[in-house]
Amino acid sequence: MNQDYIKPNDWSIIEEGFEAGRVESSESLFSLGNGAMGQRANFEEQYSGATFQGSYIAGVYYPDKTKVGWWKNGYPEYFAKVLNAPNWIGINVLVNGESLDLFTCKEVRDFRRELNMKEGWYERSFVATLPNNIEMRVKITRFLSISRNELGAINFEVEPLNSDATIVFEPYIDSGITNEDANWEEKFWETLEVKTVDHKAFITSKTLKTEFHATVFMQSQLFRNGSEINTEAKEVLFEEKISFRYTTEAKKGEKVNLHKFGGYVTDMNHKREELTAAAGKVLDNAVDSGFEKLLQEQKLAWAKIWEMADISIEGDVKAQQGIRFNIFQLNQTYLGEDARLNIGPKGFTGEKYGGSTYWDTEAYCIPFYMATKDQHVARNLLTYRYNHLDKAIENAEKLGFSNGAALYPMVTMNGEESHNEWEITFEEIHRNGAMVVAIKRYVDYTGDYDYIPEKGLEVMIAIARFWQQRANYSRQKDKYVILGVTGPNEYENNINNNWYTNYIAKWCMEYCIENLEKVKSDYSSDYERIMSKTKLSAEEIAGWQEVADKMYFPYSEEYQVFLQQDNFLDKEIVPVSELSKAQRPINQKWSWDRILRSCYIKQADVLQGFYFFEDHFSKEDLEKHFDFYEPLTVHESSLSPCVHSIQAAALGRMEQAYQFYLRTSRLDLDDYNNEVKEGCHITSMAGTWMSVVEGFGGMRIRNGKLSFDPQIPNGWKSFSFKINFRNQILKINVAPEKTSFILEGDQNLEILVKGNSIVVEPNNLITV
Amino acid sequence: MNQDYIKPNDWSIIEEGFEAGRVESSESLFSLGNGAMGQRANFEEQYSGATFQGSYIAGVYYPDKTKVGWWKNGYPEYFAKVLNAPNWIGINVLVNGESLDLFTCKEVRDFRRELNMKEGWYERSFVATLPNNIEMRVKITRFLSISRNELGAINFEVEPLNSDATIVFEPYIDSGITNEDANWEEKFWETLEVKTVDHKAFITSKTLKTEFHATVFMQSQLFRNGSEINTEAKEVLFEEKISFRYTTEAKKGEKVNLHKFGGYVTDMNHKREELTAAAGKVLDNAVDSGFEKLLQEQKLAWAKIWEMADISIEGDVKAQQGIRFNIFQLNQTYLGEDARLNIGPKGFTGEKYGGSTYWDTEAYCIPFYMATKDQHVARNLLTYRYNHLDKAIENAEKLGFSNGAALYPMVTMNGEESHNEWEITFEEIHRNGAMVVAIKRYVDYTGDYDYIPEKGLEVMIAIARFWQQRANYSRQKDKYVILGVTGPNEYENNINNNWYTNYIAKWCMEYCIENLEKVKSDYSSDYERIMSKTKLSAEEIAGWQEVADKMYFPYSEEYQVFLQQDNFLDKEIVPVSELSKAQRPINQKWSWDRILRSCYIKQADVLQGFYFFEDHFSKEDLEKHFDFYEPLTVHESSLSPCVHSIQAAALGRMEQAYQFYLRTSRLDLDDYNNEVKEGCHITSMAGTWMSVVEGFGGMRIRNGKLSFDPQIPNGWKSFSFKINFRNQILKINVAPEKTSFILEGDQNLEILVKGNSIVVEPNNLITV
Repeated sequence: MNQDYIKPNDWSIIEEGFEAGRVESSESLFSLGNGAMGQRANFEEQYSGATFQGSYIAGVYYPDKTKVGWWKNGYPEYFAKVLNAPNWIGINVLVNGESLDLFTCKEVRDFRRELNMKEGWYERSFVATLPNNIEMRVKITRFLSISRNELGAINFEVEPLNSDATIVFEPYIDSGITNEDANWEEKFWETLEVKTVDHKAFITSKTLKTEFHATVFMQSQLFRNGSEINTEAKEVLFEEKISFRYTTEAKKGEKVNLHKFGGYVTDMNHKREELTAAAGKVLDNAVDSGFEKLLQEQKLAWAKIWEMADISIEGDVKAQQGIRFNIFQLNQTYLGEDARLNIGPKGFTGEKYGGSTYWDTEAYCIPFYMATKDQHVARNLLTYRYNHLDKAIENAEKLGFSNGAALYPMVTMNGEESHNEWEITFEEIHRNGAMVVAIKRYVDYTGDYDYIPEKGLEVMIAIARFWQQRANYSRQKDKYVILGVTGPNEYENNINNNWYTNYIAKWCMEYCIENLEKVKSDYSSDYERIMSKTKLSAEEIAGWQEVADKMYFPYSEEYQVFLQQDNFLDKEIVPVSELSKAQRPINQKWSWDRILRSCYIKQADVLQGFYFFEDHFSKEDLEKHFDFYEPLTVHESSLSPCVHSIQAAALGRMEQAYQFYLRTSRLDLDDYNNEVKEGCHITSMAGTWMSVVEGFGGMRIRNGKLSFDPQIPNGWKSFSFKINFRNQILKINVAPEKTSFILEGDQNLEILVKGNSIVVEPNNLITV
Repeated sequence: MNQDYIKPNDWSIIEEGFEAGRVESSESLFSLGNGAMGQRANFEEQYSGATFQGSYIAGVYYPDKTKVGWWKNGYPEYFAKVLNAPNWIGINVLVNGESLDLFTCKEVRDFRRELNMKEGWYERSFVATLPNNIEMRVKITRFLSISRNELGAINFEVEPLNSDATIVFEPYIDSGITNEDANWEEKFWETLEVKTVDHKAFITSKTLKTEFHATVFMQSQLFRNGSEINTEAKEVLFEEKISFRYTTEAKKGEKVNLHKFGGYVTDMNHKREELTAAAGKVLDNAVDSGFEKLLQEQKLAWAKIWEMADISIEGDVKAQQGIRFNIFQLNQTYLGEDARLNIGPKGFTGEKYGGSTYWDTEAYCIPFYMATKDQHVARNLLTYRYNHLDKAIENAEKLGFSNGAALYPMVTMNGEESHNEWEITFEEIHRNGAMVVAIKRYVDYTGDYDYIPEKGLEVMIAIARFWQQRANYSRQKDKYVILGVTGPNEYENNINNNWYTNYIAKWCMEYCIENLEKVKSDYSSDYERIMSKTKLSAEEIAGWQEVADKMYFPYSEEYQVFLQQDNFLDKEIVPVSELSKAQRPINQKWSWDRILRSCYIKQADVLQGFYFFEDHFSKEDLEKHFDFYEPLTVHESSLSPCVHSIQAAALGRMEQAYQFYLRTSRLDLDDYNNEVKEGCHITSMAGTWMSVVEGFGGMRIRNGKLSFDPQIPNGWKSFSFKINFRNQILKINVAPEKTSFILEGDQNLEILVKGNSIVVEPNNLITV
């Protein structure tokens, strides 16, 4: 645990005391987002210390020119990066001509940040003594409106404490911004228009190459002791920046507030020629409502989200804070209404990992969105991949595949590959399997089988084609093998017969065949359409079956476990517990070759297969594999602890499950890997949710029915969560000796609890 | 064969006719070098078409900041690059105020280049019609002096053909140059001083970071119809450039010549404060001698080189031209007098492959230098690695090895690693073995066993330590395995138990033990010194023996061949002959993952082991392995054909051996891979020499004796080569029915010819 400065609190993230060395980490932790845009917790006013500026617009990306030491055929020439967007939050403040800058103040006391997750706002307050000895109390409240997702609002309040003062507020917008991770230190935005109309400021700029047009805008109001002052602002227009200069007097003890409204409108949602007009409208409506009313709206919007998504934990405030932080961030990142968007691994909290969509979405995020939102949200996530199918086919063609085989990219924004390490881009192909797993999970959970004939089957066919072509027949084994892959455990590269990959490949082909038959019999017109579109032949299907039937799986008779890959047992097998602390994390302490030839596992690999396909194996199988692989696992991926937590719970090892849970839920808050300043681990947060619901709650779908096997960690009084299951809301409360269920809706629901069937009636508490 | 414009000629490389599209290729092919500096065949005068400017000073490098997409632990932060050095050749020419520029001339006829390899000069001549309609005959002769290796000379002759003309020559020097392959488009040189003294120009600059100081200099003389004209030049000094402006009149048919002398002195050979003085002295001596006398010197110097190094071939002019081009380039690149220098893969013909020294030197170049130079030259090459031993130990430490284990870098300039692909830098560790093979070859050939106690044994100990630590015990195999390597066949990465690597590792440990015993008994004081320096214990040596004894070698019972690596037979084994032309070269047509999982081999891998350790195996073994692996080999490395040529010859397959020979000897002249514009493949040229001497000549060392098994390709009347063997010169001439030997020196020499012992007496032709 590298940093431990966040105060435990049920509903808020709180930091107390100002430390310049923590600024960048807090900028990540206190980030705001509303699904459409996001903002790191950068200071509004000037700050000359180290800071990582970040404003983001969902879906707006830039194809940066690939940087690589040694080119390999197949690398994409450009790849999509999350873009730092024009700045709308800036407000410089001068007090008697002296700039307010926390880095240069003589003293900063009572510094406090609060991210109120329940209500969706962020507040920063402090008392600062400026170099000119003026002492100022400052409080800034900021939020990104959930209900008006092009709008953000700031209330910047200052109060001179030891003398009267002349206060100048300089709210500004600025499109002269760059990306920290630009490969060639180029600018990604070109400014097209800089103008002001009726106290409103607008800068329209476009991204180079992708030509996304966005207008950043602002308007401000000034108040003294709560009453608006009609001060004329001095407007200054630069090439890429507009600032308004409001000058006012504040007596000692008098509060002066600047309300600033700002945000983005883009041509994803408006006509290009109407951007300024649209922005003007957003501002007019905002000013009409005023800051307070907007804040009330915000509280209501978040109340509605929490009403469905909250997990409450009694008796463990750190665990409570952790899970809420995870749920809050997931909702800030993706709200599910726009099928063009997805869940970036850093959300709106940083720029690392150019590109936004990983297999994380399918492997980790879908269950959360399925259970806490309307089912169209998860359907939108599946549709996102369906819409990228043509690009996935192109992507496979670039690597030499043919006949409509698809390889989904490792990382993407628009369907094209955005990654270029050969061992990942070309070899971490198991990701293709997760696309199909997500479809199966969705259909099993929602019962919305229609998705398969409508969209899912085409994806499955293209993926089955890929697996058949990617496998090759080994004469010496009389089996099909899959050579040269990287499994989920990225601490192995270019290995042969990764069990997980081979297993998911076989399953994808079989599941596709199974669904082809079902669609053929139940959706014949869809079937016709798909067969004519894909030109699928009976021979080709027979080919899939042949490869699936004769797929090779490395196995150890001695340990009675499937081996992660061929010759895994040639390694020196030494458990992580015998590795000295000084050697860890190995990804920082060891050279890459040493990591590769070690037995250490970054994240669940064979066990990921046991997670996805749990019901293919007995509990004894799971136990054997868990006991073999977990001790070799260093959990150096944020996606690792949650799967292990769920499996430990399934094996009844609650103490171990709880330890994994803590690690996943407070990964960022406690900054385990000393890297939170680069952004939070958004996608793994969905894994945290799974740890509670699937792990402790033991929730599964069995034959279309919800099933629970509740357990509770030692020391917790209770925990509860809600599930949207086929348009009925079930609330589950788990206490040490009892579990209770309450159902909203109008139909009875048959569920399984520890294997026993129970019928829950609407609005009738049942306790087991 | 992509380009085939070089005219066949025994002793010269000739191009006729001007084509702008060939300029960059010819700049490589007509490069000049004298071991200390080199120069691509760039035009002296202005040229506005595509050109790749390159001037190089041996040993002067720049540590460029590493460029990589995804950083891996262990990558070097900087790496040494061959530096483009200040320009000394430039001579702009104006004719009646119009710039002579072949790219803008109305017509260029009679364009001809000749690189006279026998005499070591390069001439370019043409008749050009300038935009102002003046027709000029131009002839430029240039060489880099072998005997005065800081000096180059140019004779630039112009003759107006259709009218009188005012000619302006502007010779210049320029330090404002960049590298084409700079990672971050930075300049690598900083100019320190720009000055002229007595018609001499000097620019002193230093490389950034490495602080090599170099002075580029020039002085010129003007002649009309052979008589010197004392025209005062107008001197113009810029920030990084000096030009002298000579204006003269030339009547129609009158020849005007500018003789320009220039070059470099550096602080590798002079004190920094004396650089300008040293340069002045070089110029004074050059002007004293004059162009013609210097050219005579040059011819003599090259005659001396050829006297020893020439291979003559009767009856096959293309083969003759090919081998001489190879021998010529090797001598231009490295003359063996300076143990700080080595043989870069592109020599002085281009900047590709930052860094200069690869395992190519040990694996391919040592035999050539051993046989065609005094033996101290090869000793210098070995000493180069001995001098880098501490850095090689550091390099291994960075990767987690300890106790004085050494890993020599994949590429280096100063002993530090200059490469950063993990699969190469960290895994292509077989290179360590070549260091020891080179020592063995040197000692076997020269009989200079003293090298081992003096220097070689320390290198061997450090390398044996590396191999022991790098291997690990596989309990399931009860053998030592070496996991996660890249063999010489770089079309496989991160493989386990590469046979070649395991074999050379075992051999290195055994050879080290063997030599420890010999040194202990025969060189006891050296032994004491080494044991005390290395703190080597009997237990450690026993550990090496244990690993060597139990080393694992993958083997196929079915094919009765050693397998290139574990599970090689899981691949689809389809010979290259069944691969369509459209698929080749696979390194341009296929994605990297497809190459990796294919069975195709870039260059000799198992067969490289059979080459190095030929006498460990029977001819039947060789045949079996050759027949298994060669058909899977795509020979997409310049180092591939020569080894196969030698082995085909050993198997008596002369037609195949000849085809491989042609491919290696004319690789650049015929530009097989369409890349010669980036520079020539210098190190593989030594392989060409081996193809003739070891392949066709069948030369080996057997128990300290020279042994020959001569064969001759169909259609050749004869070929002959010379060998310096233990300070006696043996000349061998091979004709279809007979081989003759003639020996210089004063002692009889016992040699083996086809296994029969023959005593050659000095100066007495023996024919077998």
